[in-house]
Parts: sequence; structure tokens; C-alpha cells
Amino acid sequence: MPRIALGLEYDGTDFIGWQIQPTGRSIEGVLAAAVSFVAGEPTNVHGSGRTDAGVHALQQVVHFETRVNRTPRQWLLGINSNLPADATVRWIQEMPADFDARRSAVSRRYRYTILQQAARPALLRRRVWWLRQALNCSAMTATATGWLGEHDFSAFRAAGCQAKSPMRRLMAVQIAARQHGMGTLVTFEFTANAFLQHMVRNFVGTLVAVGSGEMSPADAAAILRNRDRKVAGETAPAAGLVLVEALYPAHYGVPRCLDEA
Amino acid sequence: MPRIALGLEYDGTDFIGWQIQPTGRSIEGVLAAAVSFVAGEPTNVHGSGRTDAGVHALQQVVHFETRVNRTPRQWLLGINSNLPADATVRWIQEMPADFDARRSAVSRRYRYTILQQAARPALLRRRVWWLRQALNCSAMTATATGWLGEHDFSAFRAAGCQAKSPMRRLMAVQIAARQHGMGTLVTFEFTANAFLQHMVRNFVGTLVAVGSGEMSPADAAAILRNRDRKVAGETAPAAGLVLVEALYPAHYGVPRCLDEA
Repeated sequence: MPRIALGLEYDGTDFIGWQIQPTGRSIEGVLAAAVSFVAGEPTNVHGSGRTDAGVHALQQVVHFETRVNRTPRQWLLGINSNLPADATVRWIQEMPADFDARRSAVSRRYRYTILQQAARPALLRRRVWWLRQALNCSAMTATATGWLGEHDFSAFRAAGCQAKSPMRRLMAVQIAARQHGMGTLVTFEFTANAFLQHMVRNFVGTLVAVGSGEMSPADAAAILRNRDRKVAGETAPAAGLVLVEALYPAHYGVPRCLDEA
Repeated sequence: MPRIALGLEYDGTDFIGWQIQPTGRSIEGVLAAAVSFVAGEPTNVHGSGRTDAGVHALQQVVHFETRVNRTPRQWLLGINSNLPADATVRWIQEMPADFDARRSAVSRRYRYTILQQAARPALLRRRVWWLRQALNCSAMTATATGWLGEHDFSAFRAAGCQAKSPMRRLMAVQIAARQHGMGTLVTFEFTANAFLQHMVRNFVGTLVAVGSGEMSPADAAAILRNRDRKVAGETAPAAGLVLVEALYPAHYGVPRCLDEA
């Protein structure tokens, strides 16, 4: 059966997360419903990974199989007409039969955004973690780069995480700050082969503890080594997190997601 | 009585506009309620100008008078605790008795944002006008700069506009385009001493007609001269419009709103 891949953007605020659950509005659920409607038959969709309630995506990569013959443009217009306003297909293309959105992905890139300023934001309220205190970016960068490489990331894993292994390879970290109105936008980007549940949000919670001076860089470094979730920082709120893209071997020709703040 | 000024940010999506009306949730209404609660007595608020339903503000400037003695920090925290999540006070300060948010303003700056790409957006859906067609920015800039100066802007005025005079002085125009993911963000900034109702949205509707080739630059130039609303472009949707700031004589020390996309 022909295999189709698509890039899905969503505002996670009003979803219960990627995965279909007995009740609630899931991204997987609204997308499967839209694809099934266009295909004219029940069709399952498979994402590159799950995102939690409130977490956004610039480009979640998804595949599905179908017997139905449509052009990419027909699929895109048809699916987008049947998706709610807070989810949209950015591109769609046919794929080789061996492409699998989850198993073929070689890495995932997430971005977390903090808005640091005196007063709470209104326009960005769904997209950032608002903090009053200033953050020391060089201390946070020193700490985060210490996590690079292949490690047992149990200390940054949610209690309910269902992954079989806590080993993950953190491939890139980038922390940047820029002025934004009366405050500062601090962005954290993490690329890893895969992520444990809450891993990025637990990274950010710990980095904020370091950046605001509550935790020493040495203590933060020990957290990873000791694999002890209890001493890591709090889990940063979901609103600040966005799955930027999943990356695949070049021969699949999956569009990249670049230059989008 | 002491006079207080504040900068108000709001997401206009779920408001009926600035002005209190018999029914519906207005920005003036929620702000007056929050100020009155903190002051402990009914207090009216006065904005630099009205914004329509769905139009946002980075910094609407507002003043009110009060007998109550509070520090700026107490006012800010108190009011923000009593405002809904889609409105927030950015700063607050005491002002000379002659300061008036509307009458003291020497100009207003508005920004309109178009996202041009094949598929509709999800994350930016409340902040942009989504268009599929490409726009010629140099043709739009040539047209818009032709409107600079003091003119009768009747051609760009809403039918229900209540201003006494259609004369306005357009002081600055800036049109810029930058890549954004799989599309292009086109931003239009207009500064004028004051604006007629729908003036920016009618400017943008006409510029899009020029930028997409539907209208010739010569026809667009004639619209202003002929003062004929019927031949101008459509009114661009409210979601793409934001009141960036109102500007005042420097001695009032009103904070500027800069570097915010």
C-alpha cells in the first residue's frame, strides 16, 4: 500500500497531547479522523513520537498507509479542511514503503522558550514560561553542555515514562537570549536521538535553578551522574515547549523546519 | 487627584474591542473592573484610542485618576491579579495632571502581519492574515509611500467611523518580508498622528490587491485622490493587526515599545 508522510503543526494548548486516550481531544485523534474522512475509510496515523498535553509542534512528522489514490495537493487541502484551526498539515508527500515516522527518525529537535520580565505576558501566554527572575545564560550553557553525549538520563525522566531504556544520546544544545519588549526571551534547543518523557522540561527546570543561582553547576552535574530525579529541578510548564522537527536520513527528502521563532 | 498611566498588552481575539458596549467582553471593561477593584471605588479608564474587535495591542496607553495611594508596583501586581490571562499591564507610573492618554498622544504606530504560505498556519492563526499568493513588496512600498503626508483619508475609512474629520497625517510606512518556516512573513508598519476606523486594515487590503497584481499602482494612487471607499481593496482581517504603541512628548517619560516581533 502507498505510504504517505506529512508535517503537522499544532498549538498544543487545547489538546490532551498526541496520543489517543479514552476521553479528551488528542492530536492523533483529530488527525486520524481527518485522514479517514478524506480516505473514505478508517486510517491510523503514526507520529515520530508523542508530545504531552499542552506541548506544541512546528513539525511533527506522521505517516499513514492508504489504498486511496490522491495527489499530495488533494490530501493536503482535504485533510486541512477537516482539521480544527489549532492543527494544520504543512506539507505532504508519498514515501518509500520502508519509511516509518518513528523508527526512521534519527533525531528529534525540541525548543523551550522562557520570557523573563516583570509583568506576565498576554500575547505570548500560550507559548512561553514566564519568569520574573534574571537567568545566567553562561552558567546554564556550561551545565547543559555537560549533559551532551550518551547517558542514562533517569534523573530527567517522568515517573510514568514508558520507555524501555533510559539511555539517550544528547547531540546538540543551544541556549540563546534576546531582548523582547521590556523583557528577555531565552530559548533552549535540544537535539537527541530520542527523548524520555518530560526530559526537556526537566532539563529546563534544572537549568533555571542553575541560572537563577538556586543550584550550583556542580550540583546540577551530579544529578545526571546520580540518576536521582528527586534532586533535579521542577518540571518546566508544557506551554514553553515545541517539537521543532524530527530528522531523517537525507534520501527520504523530508522537508526541514528552519528559521522559525 | 493623582493621575496614573499604564501600558496595556492584550490579545484581542476574544474581546469585542476596546470600548465598553451594552453586552460583550471589552478591554476597557475588564481593565476598569480590575482598576476599580484595586482602588476600592469605581474608576474610569481612558485609552489612547479604540481598537476594534479582534485587534491586539502590545502597548495601549491608558490613564486613570484616583484618590487612592499605592506604589506603582502595588498597582501593577494588583491590577494584573484581577485581569484575565489575555490582558496584562506592562508598566505603570504616576503622571503630571495634564497627561491625557488620548489628547497628549502625538502619534500611534500600528503593525499588520501577513503570513504567505501554501498551508494555513496553526500556531500563528490568531496573529496573522494567512494568504496563499505571493506579494510584490516593492510595488506595495511604492504605493504606501505615496500616501505619506496629510490627506483626506475618506477612501480608507469605515462606513461607521465616528471621527469628525477625515484628515490624518501619515508619518511613516515600512514594509518588510522575511522567511518564516515554509512561508514568508510580511509586516506593514504605519505611524500617523491618529487613524480613522479600519484605516490600517483598508490600507493593507488595498496593498495586497497591488502586491498580488489585481490592482495597478496607478489605480491605488487614484483611490486616495478620489476619496472613494468603494474602489479601495477589502478590509484586511482584524487578527493581523496590533497597536504597537502610542507616542507622547518626551517629557512625559512614557516607555517605548521596541524590538518585539
